[in-house]
Amino acid sequence: MTPAYTIGVDFGTNSVRAIVIDCADGRIVGSQVFDYPSGEQGILLDARDPHLARQNPADYLAGLRASVSGALESAGRDREFSRERVVGIGVDTTGSTPLPVDARNQPLALDARWQHHLPAHAWLWKDHTSADEAAAITAAARQHAPELVAPIGGTYSSEWFWAKVWHCLNVAPEVFDAAASWVELADFIPAVLAGVSSPRDIRRCVCAAGHKAMYSETWGGLPPTAFLARLHPRLAALRDRLFDRAYPADRPAGHLSPEWAGTFGLRPGIAIAMGGFDAHYGAVGAGIRGGTFVKIIGTSTCDCAIAPADQPMADIPGICGIVNGSIMPGYYGIEAGQSAVGDLLKWWVEEVCLGDQLLHEQLSDEAGQLRAGESGLLALDWNNGNRTILVDPRLTGLLLGQTLRTTRAEVYRALIEATAFGARAIVGRLKEYGVPIERVVCCGGIAEKNPVFMQIYADVLGAPMHLAGSPQTPAVGAAISAAVAAGGAAGGYDTFEAAQRRMTFPHARTFQADPDAHATYDELYAIYRELHDSFGGVSAAPAALGSIMKRLLALRDRVVARAPQVTHA
Amino acid sequence: MTPAYTIGVDFGTNSVRAIVIDCADGRIVGSQVFDYPSGEQGILLDARDPHLARQNPADYLAGLRASVSGALESAGRDREFSRERVVGIGVDTTGSTPLPVDARNQPLALDARWQHHLPAHAWLWKDHTSADEAAAITAAARQHAPELVAPIGGTYSSEWFWAKVWHCLNVAPEVFDAAASWVELADFIPAVLAGVSSPRDIRRCVCAAGHKAMYSETWGGLPPTAFLARLHPRLAALRDRLFDRAYPADRPAGHLSPEWAGTFGLRPGIAIAMGGFDAHYGAVGAGIRGGTFVKIIGTSTCDCAIAPADQPMADIPGICGIVNGSIMPGYYGIEAGQSAVGDLLKWWVEEVCLGDQLLHEQLSDEAGQLRAGESGLLALDWNNGNRTILVDPRLTGLLLGQTLRTTRAEVYRALIEATAFGARAIVGRLKEYGVPIERVVCCGGIAEKNPVFMQIYADVLGAPMHLAGSPQTPAVGAAISAAVAAGGAAGGYDTFEAAQRRMTFPHARTFQADPDAHATYDELYAIYRELHDSFGGVSAAPAALGSIMKRLLALRDRVVARAPQVTHA
Repeated sequence: MTPAYTIGVDFGTNSVRAIVIDCADGRIVGSQVFDYPSGEQGILLDARDPHLARQNPADYLAGLRASVSGALESAGRDREFSRERVVGIGVDTTGSTPLPVDARNQPLALDARWQHHLPAHAWLWKDHTSADEAAAITAAARQHAPELVAPIGGTYSSEWFWAKVWHCLNVAPEVFDAAASWVELADFIPAVLAGVSSPRDIRRCVCAAGHKAMYSETWGGLPPTAFLARLHPRLAALRDRLFDRAYPADRPAGHLSPEWAGTFGLRPGIAIAMGGFDAHYGAVGAGIRGGTFVKIIGTSTCDCAIAPADQPMADIPGICGIVNGSIMPGYYGIEAGQSAVGDLLKWWVEEVCLGDQLLHEQLSDEAGQLRAGESGLLALDWNNGNRTILVDPRLTGLLLGQTLRTTRAEVYRALIEATAFGARAIVGRLKEYGVPIERVVCCGGIAEKNPVFMQIYADVLGAPMHLAGSPQTPAVGAAISAAVAAGGAAGGYDTFEAAQRRMTFPHARTFQADPDAHATYDELYAIYRELHDSFGGVSAAPAALGSIMKRLLALRDRVVARAPQVTHA
Repeated sequence: MTPAYTIGVDFGTNSVRAIVIDCADGRIVGSQVFDYPSGEQGILLDARDPHLARQNPADYLAGLRASVSGALESAGRDREFSRERVVGIGVDTTGSTPLPVDARNQPLALDARWQHHLPAHAWLWKDHTSADEAAAITAAARQHAPELVAPIGGTYSSEWFWAKVWHCLNVAPEVFDAAASWVELADFIPAVLAGVSSPRDIRRCVCAAGHKAMYSETWGGLPPTAFLARLHPRLAALRDRLFDRAYPADRPAGHLSPEWAGTFGLRPGIAIAMGGFDAHYGAVGAGIRGGTFVKIIGTSTCDCAIAPADQPMADIPGICGIVNGSIMPGYYGIEAGQSAVGDLLKWWVEEVCLGDQLLHEQLSDEAGQLRAGESGLLALDWNNGNRTILVDPRLTGLLLGQTLRTTRAEVYRALIEATAFGARAIVGRLKEYGVPIERVVCCGGIAEKNPVFMQIYADVLGAPMHLAGSPQTPAVGAAISAAVAAGGAAGGYDTFEAAQRRMTFPHARTFQADPDAHATYDELYAIYRELHDSFGGVSAAPAALGSIMKRLLALRDRVVARAPQVTHA
């Protein structure tokens, strides 16, 4: 058989990564990372509003060009590789990351008129400026159309499409007016590669549409005009300038345009896979199947599970979305997530401790020397709101249990533990609603680089944490989608399952739970849930908050008392 | 009139300061600071127990010698001064700081046998290892002898004498056995200067006895043997090896021994004033009178007020102590306090941010640029427990409202605000029980050095904050006590009031409250009280904790919206 290669391009929050992969065995033969040049690590911020996070779309195009060119160049050092043998390109991106485009499918922000206008840029997933609009959408849906939010956990998030677009209409109507349409980044990049010159012709993925834009075939696509009109008449009018149908990744989004084929030295017309969210393609690259829970742990965490689409599926409160075909065709894609994980540690190390990567490593090492419960600290990981299971962006961080001798490493560990407790809350909710979780597979930068983090997760969850066999699983998943888009006849595959079998690898490493640590974390998790439910507004019944500090001190004293006699300097 | 001078010696947590002062006009003619050499800034710690804080008594003797000698030497540069004209020495110290001594009044820790034994050293005020014993004393008193704890707020603290001595008995009975008696540092230093060679001959001050050792003439001195026997028979036996009577500062504790007179080049036999706590003599040096609330703001804060002893005085729940004669003869001394103030900022700057004095100043400057409510943060200042009004050492810190962009300066300000809210809770409690507070006078290192801190206090309390006219008010107050001990005939004074009139100065500076900031702080204080009461176990009624984060964000948004358009880089 002639060797075939596909390209996976992963648009992260701070960089673009392209890989070239051998379809026969999943071997990565070339790769290139491109760091965004604009703003702060690619992110445009507003000093007056910590909830704002935008990105210059020029960075996306520069990143696409540089990363794919670089990956192909490095693949060129492999003797068997040739650009002729590349049969498809797949793309994954962050999301919901909508951007306003003009009638020619050009991002508004590329126009000199708009380039200094933050609302004309891409609205990053972690932009939370539209909390009011999200709350209004939730309220309107609960009253008038509960079916719209039932599959997305009952609460519409400020991280999502309609809230962001509506907020733009409210704060920058001139940008809203100038936009012919709005496109998710996951749909935009494949459309660019395919040379699509009108937003009407973009083939939109059900992944973004279903999880973020309240799209479902059950009610005929996007939310009904009547519902949108309740929010704002101009949103109702926008509906017709968006799209009628969204698609799973079972067919290509288009074919490589002659211009981009020229840029990359690839054959024109090769398959461009449907775009997808980084988490979803990351799950594919991590080898997701029924019973597998995939955690993509990076700046934030996205969790994915799948369940056969031919069986009934209940709505699960607080779970971001359950969308038919969103992760793999033929399955419900179930998505959950945590809004700040790597970002939370980054905040502590870089914003508070003013440290760098070396300090990350040092604090991680020191945190690894501590035992569960030893610091007396307990934190809530809500510095960027809570995506699952509270779906509430208007929540903030909490740290409790500090003494005058609390160290930065102890806080670092407490923040990791807080995210692990958040993860446990998500797993608990899914199991409660019948989603089988037999195996937890982790991928993403934090999972790959931080064994202390992984061990804490194993101890908190009381289950083995497997590290995915491939690094860069989103790009691998995107390359798998390209192989499926190309099809078996072209050297790819006809199904995702077949592609996964050949293009993914067994676990790279497994972290086993320590039974003692897990027992301590059972106690801490119960206290965490008191804080979580009290400050998350879950429970009207009062927790015994007056004893929480004492219980943490008593637990600490017990842990210290049974520890070997060593001194932590 | 022949000029007369007195010496005030202030034993702080990290250093000893001596001043030589002109009795006629309060002019400081010489001074010297001695930093403790042992341990961490003088404090002996145990890496395994953050509640432990001891001090080597050798440091006290070295500090006494070096500071007084140095102060006299620097006074020698004043043309009018001569050592012949020094008429008295006064001493203030931290407390409750008990130390075990042998039958010759030598600290056990000076004996080679005990020097590496932490329980044989002085038990610093901020040692909280005896929380269990304090709780047991509180429980026993509430059940069997409520009168014992009524004047000290109803709760016995782990910072106090009996809890510490009992804890020593429990964890280091060999030290307890070896101790002929236990002496408060405030009594020990005057006894040393007076050449007292048996603990039985020490003239103990009512200040330490009344506030920390449940001493009162109402029940005939120290707690009855029967009560102590309920705690432990050996505590009852110890009672007879302590003291029968304690005295206010209306007469000298003794007279300078020939040995120390030789060491210092002073006349033997000059008056040694009764020792007192730094806070109490600080209040005297700050010009305390009826209606004045003195805050001595340093590593911790001690608050003092006085009320005429010839009028009835109610017990006030949660107030550390109301003791006849403890601050000035003829008045009830009322004491309150906060366990971590400067220490809390020091923890943040030095332990977390790994900074130094320069960073303290930088964060203070940056914090001063922020407006009330702008950070969205709210903290509880309980990293070292809560002394007033909860009297609970088993409480810990809390920080709430963090985003991914929260800065170290914002946290620094939130910690200052937390201590200011704690101060407001104390003022509110005193006023509620009829203690008039017409004027707030601040002294201590933080008050003198940090105008941002003082402005925040004025804004939170909604009242002018006056800075005491003299710096180093504890040493000034100790020197005043020495002038009174010497008496008018010797060039001193016959009453504290007369001495205060000549030896203290008007306010050095006044910080006025900003009405807008105060209005914001009224809102924040209400939220603080919800946290305070919930986590402090005050209120069984549930606070609306589920909305706290949202309310803080809404307040922040309002504050930012009405702010002038400036960017905080």
